[in-house]
Amino acid sequence: MAHSTLCYELVHQARQRVSRLQNASSRQRALNSIIDAVGCMFIGAASATKPFGLTEPSNNGIAVVIGRSTRAGPSHAALLNGYHAHFLDFDDSLYPAQSHPTAVILPALLAAVSIKEVDAGVFFDALAVGFEFQGLLGELCAQRFYDDGWWTTALLGAPAAALAVAHVLGYTAEVSAHATALAIASSFGMKGCFGSSAKALGVGLSARAGFEAALLAQSGHTGPLGILEDARGPLALRNVNVASGPDYGRDSLFLDAPGPTYKLYPVCTAAHATIDALRQIREDGVTPEEVENITVRVNKYVVSCLTFARPNNREEAQFSLPFSVASVMARGTVGLAELDGDFINSEQLRRWFSKISIVEDPSVGIGSTSEGSGQEAAVVEVYTPRGRHEKRVDHAKGQTLNPLSPQDLEEKYLSLVSAAFSSDVAKDTLTTLKCLIDSTNVEKTLGTLVV
Amino acid sequence: MAHSTLCYELVHQARQRVSRLQNASSRQRALNSIIDAVGCMFIGAASATKPFGLTEPSNNGIAVVIGRSTRAGPSHAALLNGYHAHFLDFDDSLYPAQSHPTAVILPALLAAVSIKEVDAGVFFDALAVGFEFQGLLGELCAQRFYDDGWWTTALLGAPAAALAVAHVLGYTAEVSAHATALAIASSFGMKGCFGSSAKALGVGLSARAGFEAALLAQSGHTGPLGILEDARGPLALRNVNVASGPDYGRDSLFLDAPGPTYKLYPVCTAAHATIDALRQIREDGVTPEEVENITVRVNKYVVSCLTFARPNNREEAQFSLPFSVASVMARGTVGLAELDGDFINSEQLRRWFSKISIVEDPSVGIGSTSEGSGQEAAVVEVYTPRGRHEKRVDHAKGQTLNPLSPQDLEEKYLSLVSAAFSSDVAKDTLTTLKCLIDSTNVEKTLGTLVV
Repeated sequence: MAHSTLCYELVHQARQRVSRLQNASSRQRALNSIIDAVGCMFIGAASATKPFGLTEPSNNGIAVVIGRSTRAGPSHAALLNGYHAHFLDFDDSLYPAQSHPTAVILPALLAAVSIKEVDAGVFFDALAVGFEFQGLLGELCAQRFYDDGWWTTALLGAPAAALAVAHVLGYTAEVSAHATALAIASSFGMKGCFGSSAKALGVGLSARAGFEAALLAQSGHTGPLGILEDARGPLALRNVNVASGPDYGRDSLFLDAPGPTYKLYPVCTAAHATIDALRQIREDGVTPEEVENITVRVNKYVVSCLTFARPNNREEAQFSLPFSVASVMARGTVGLAELDGDFINSEQLRRWFSKISIVEDPSVGIGSTSEGSGQEAAVVEVYTPRGRHEKRVDHAKGQTLNPLSPQDLEEKYLSLVSAAFSSDVAKDTLTTLKCLIDSTNVEKTLGTLVV
Repeated sequence: MAHSTLCYELVHQARQRVSRLQNASSRQRALNSIIDAVGCMFIGAASATKPFGLTEPSNNGIAVVIGRSTRAGPSHAALLNGYHAHFLDFDDSLYPAQSHPTAVILPALLAAVSIKEVDAGVFFDALAVGFEFQGLLGELCAQRFYDDGWWTTALLGAPAAALAVAHVLGYTAEVSAHATALAIASSFGMKGCFGSSAKALGVGLSARAGFEAALLAQSGHTGPLGILEDARGPLALRNVNVASGPDYGRDSLFLDAPGPTYKLYPVCTAAHATIDALRQIREDGVTPEEVENITVRVNKYVVSCLTFARPNNREEAQFSLPFSVASVMARGTVGLAELDGDFINSEQLRRWFSKISIVEDPSVGIGSTSEGSGQEAAVVEVYTPRGRHEKRVDHAKGQTLNPLSPQDLEEKYLSLVSAAFSSDVAKDTLTTLKCLIDSTNVEKTLGTLVV
C-alpha cells in the first residue's frame, strides 16, 4: 500500500533515474555546485559574527563545520553549515524547484558522512538524488508555491536533503520514503521571512530537518507516506492539484539540464538582469555624473521578489531593486563590500534613490523555468543630457542560458574565501575540493576545509 | 516601526495581560496542566521504545528529560520532552487555539531553566504568557487553520513556546517579539501527519523551535516582525484575514477561562463524547452480547478528525471512531492497554466493525470553541433485541463544561506513571510536582523527575 503513494513514487523515480543517468559529466556538475556552496559557507562562517545563540560543547564534535576550527554534533553541524551556506544568499538555484538546493542538501550530507565513511561516488550520487527529488517535487508544485508566497527552498529542501542522506547511509527505498515523508511533514517556509535572519536560519533548519528525518526513519519512525496527496497535506493545503504529476520521462537529470544557476552578485537573482544591464550601460561610456534618471522595467515576478524600496540593512538590501541600481551607479557593482550597513545607509547611495523609477511591465518577458531560464529579464533606460541609453538583458550572467564558466566559478570561490581568510586558504581549499571527485573517503577530504 | 506589527502587539498584549491578571488561582491551574503533561511525559518516555535515531552524548546533558536517567543538551531535551509529552496524544488542549499547548510550551521551559535558575513564580507566569499568546493568536486564526487542515499545535505552539522561554530568561519585549517572529517563520504543521510518528515528533520539533528561536533572538538574530500581516506570511498564505484581530479586552486569562481541557482517554478528543455515551449505555445494563448494531451520529468536524475506518496501528487507532466504539464494546473502555497492536488487529475487535455505522449528522450540535466547549458532541444508538438505547453526550468528561476534578487529574497522573514505572515513583513525583508551586529553584525541583 505504501508503494502506491506519491511520496514513495517520487523517491523511487529519483533513485532510479540517478542510477540510470548518472555519469562523469553529472559528477563534474555536482562538483561545481559543491565548490560554489563551500565558497559560500566559508564567507558565511566568517561573516556570521553574531553569537549563534545555540551552543554545543565542542567535545561533542564529529562533524565538520566548514570554515570553523571546531567540529559539532551532526545535527548542529547541518544547521550551522546550512545557515552559513545561505548567509549571503549567494548560493546556487534550481529553477524547476524554485529553490536553492545545494545549501540545504550539502550540509545534510556533510553531517551524514560524519557517521558513515563513503567515497566520492556515493557522495556525488547522493547529491544528484537530492537534486532529482527536488526537481521532480518542484515540477509538481514549486512554481505555484513560490508565486503564492511559500518559500520553496525550505519546503522542498528538507525532503530532498532527507533522501540524499538516506542514499549516503544506504537506507532502503521504504525507509527513504518514510524519511522524505517525515521531512515533508515538518517542513515550513514562507517568503515573508525574506529580509530577516529567518531566511538563512531557515536553510540551516531545513538541512537539519532533512538530516534528522533520515535518521528517525531508519530508527523505525514512520512518516505519513500519503502526505503529498492527502487533503490535509502540503500540496492540497497550498492549493496545488496533484492530478498532473511530474514528468518522469524526461531524459536528463535536473543536475544536468537545466542544471543549477549560479550567482555573480550576492543579492536576489531577480535583480541580476538589471545589474548586468546597468553595468553594460556604464561600460558603454555613460558616467554616473551625467545620469539624470533611471527607469527599470521588470515584470510582476521581479517586483514581487524585491519588496524593499528603502532598505535599512543587508538582508533588506538583498531584496531591494533600488539598492542594486544605486549600488551599480555609486560603486560600479554589487559585491560583498556593498552589503555593508554604512554603505547601505550612506548619503551617497540614498541620493540615487530619487532618480530611480521601477516600472512593472508585463511585456518584459517571462522565461520558462522548466528550461532553466529565469523570469528575471530587465529593460533598463538611463537618461542623460546626451539622450536615452537602453539595454535589455533577458538572461543574467549565471543563468543556465548565459552560464558561468568553470573559471568564473573558481574565481568566485577564490574571491569569497580570500575575502574572509587568505588567498592561500582559498587556493589550498579549492585544490582540495577539485580532488574531491576522486576521494575514497569524503569525510577525510572535507575535514581539511576548516581554518 | 517594529512596534506597530501584529506580532509585536500580540507579544505586548500577552505579557501585559498576564502581569495584570495572574493570580494564585491561575497558578493552581497552571500546575494542573504541568501535572497532566508530566504524567504524559513519563508514560511517553517509557512507551517510546524505538531507538530515537538522533543521539547526543550524555556528557552534554544539562537539561532534564522527564522519565529518563540521563540529561541532554537543552535543544535536544526540548525535542525529547515534547515528543514524549505527545507520544500518546493524551495531553491537554486549549480550544481557542485548537491546540495542545502544554506539550510544546512546557518542554521549552524545561530547557530554559537548565540555563537560568528561576523560581516558581517566574516559571508559572511564563507558562501563562505562553498560553495567553497561543490563545490570542488562536483567536486570530486557529479555527480556520484547523478546519482547513493545518495542524495548530505545531503552528501556534512554537511561537508560544518562544515567548514563554523569553519570559523565563528575562528577555526584553523587543527580543521577545523577534523570538516569536523567528518561531512563526519556521513553524509548520499539517493534519496529514495524524496517524504517523510525525505528530508526536512534531510536538518535539515545535518545542525545540520555540526554545531555539528565543535564544537566537537574544543573540541578535532578527525575526520578520511583520510576518503575521505580510501577504507572504502564515495567515495570508492560509487565507486568514487579519483585519479582525483577537479580543484584547477579554477579562480573564486563557489559562483560566475557558482554560485547557484534559483527556480521560488516550485517543483524539473527537472520539470522547462517543466513548462516554457508550460507556453510559453499558452502565445502564446493555451487555455486549446482546448488541446487534451501533449507530454513532456526529457532526462533520468529528468525521474530519477521525479518518481511519480500519486502523492498523496505535497512531491510526487514535484517529479512528470505529476503533473507540469497538474497544468500549470489547473491553469497556479505551485505555493504554487497548492501544496495543495485537488488540487493534485482533479478531475480537474486528468483529465489531461490521456492526458499527458512523453517520454524519449536522443536527448534532457544534459548540463554541471560544467558550471552551468542543465540537465533539455525539448521539449513540445501540440496538438490541430489547430495543433501542440512545445516549447523547454534548460535553465529554474532561471538557471545560464537564471538567475533571483535581482528584481525577491526580488519578490520571498516578495511573500513567505507575503503568510505566512503579506506584512509588508515581506517588513521589506527584508529591514533588504539587510542591513545585512554591519552589524557589524550579530546575532543582524538576531534576528529581527522572528515574
